[in-house]
Amino acid sequence: MRWLLRENALQLQSILSLDSDDEMTSDRFKDRYYKGELIPINYQEIYQVCQGVVKLSTISDTGEEVLVGLASSSMPFGASITSLNIYQATALTNNVELVRFPLTNWLNCPSRVQKLVPKLTSRLRQTELLLYISDQRRVKHRLHYLLQFLKQEIGQPVPQGTRLSVRFTHEELASACCATRVTTTRQLNKLREQGMISVDDEHHIILLN
Amino acid sequence: MRWLLRENALQLQSILSLDSDDEMTSDRFKDRYYKGELIPINYQEIYQVCQGVVKLSTISDTGEEVLVGLASSSMPFGASITSLNIYQATALTNNVELVRFPLTNWLNCPSRVQKLVPKLTSRLRQTELLLYISDQRRVKHRLHYLLQFLKQEIGQPVPQGTRLSVRFTHEELASACCATRVTTTRQLNKLREQGMISVDDEHHIILLN
Repeated sequence: MRWLLRENALQLQSILSLDSDDEMTSDRFKDRYYKGELIPINYQEIYQVCQGVVKLSTISDTGEEVLVGLASSSMPFGASITSLNIYQATALTNNVELVRFPLTNWLNCPSRVQKLVPKLTSRLRQTELLLYISDQRRVKHRLHYLLQFLKQEIGQPVPQGTRLSVRFTHEELASACCATRVTTTRQLNKLREQGMISVDDEHHIILLN
Repeated sequence: MRWLLRENALQLQSILSLDSDDEMTSDRFKDRYYKGELIPINYQEIYQVCQGVVKLSTISDTGEEVLVGLASSSMPFGASITSLNIYQATALTNNVELVRFPLTNWLNCPSRVQKLVPKLTSRLRQTELLLYISDQRRVKHRLHYLLQFLKQEIGQPVPQGTRLSVRFTHEELASACCATRVTTTRQLNKLREQGMISVDDEHHIILLN
């Protein structure tokens, strides 16, 4: 189990006293993480992403990581909105900033709740899509839909098409679409040859127009 | 594509004029479905389950049905809260009653939104769990977690344990956990022999204490 606790009594107390929605803009209560860092999750809190991208994952019975979502742009995550026993949050970018709310007052603020519905809906859309991807029999299709998913979630428009704002290794893409690294590399090479994707100087994938 | 439209101008007009939350209790605007019926989905509406259980599914590239959720007790579903192109809703019980809201005024009512967050959260929990299940390599584990999922979502306490309120065929369980019917039957027989489950006179599975 990778549940970890990060206790910071002072910070928690400050958050507890908040009841407006300005914590998303205030700098005081943000936790910052760098790419690759595991974000400690406290059962009593809800996290919301102010900046950057957070990978949410669990571990299968064979010890493999299973991608369950990518949280960015105000998306919430946390122990109370999952039923998975193992729930990992990892910073995917160098600029991850999070705010945390105690569970007890998470739904107290009507304006926050109003904004929450579209974000929760986005997370639901994501997991449904990941479920669809994971049930495709052929690696080729799983990779295709995974790239479409990443394009939608973390794509940035560039002149040639859409650039994934996060750099992924072939190993990571292979893990995310339940394939071997070798097969994934072969499929990515095929997509490159077919002019569907390219890779820029910083090793980010571009889905070509 | 199984998107179907059900047009009923009069009914739609009546719903459009609603802005309170009493439509969940009013009998006038409920759609009723029987077990096995495909629920027509209108892109412009959101559905909420008043009674019964609705199976939400999509179709994989090989034409197989992929379970993406079970909607019951006020859970919402509809085209605007999915990104799947194929999205089927099927009545799983004989007593399905739904209310429909036009997308345009779905989030207008603060009390409805407040109630919506826990329901959306439940749907998110479900899809994450289904994702976890589908990524288990062994059928035995997939079936085990599927039964736990069904216990949690549609279980009713009985003296011996928890009875699934919906009757499933082995074929349906096999489809839901991506296994063959033969393997699923074998695994279910094993669970029976081990005293983990039993089946009652109405062919409903009981997960024994």
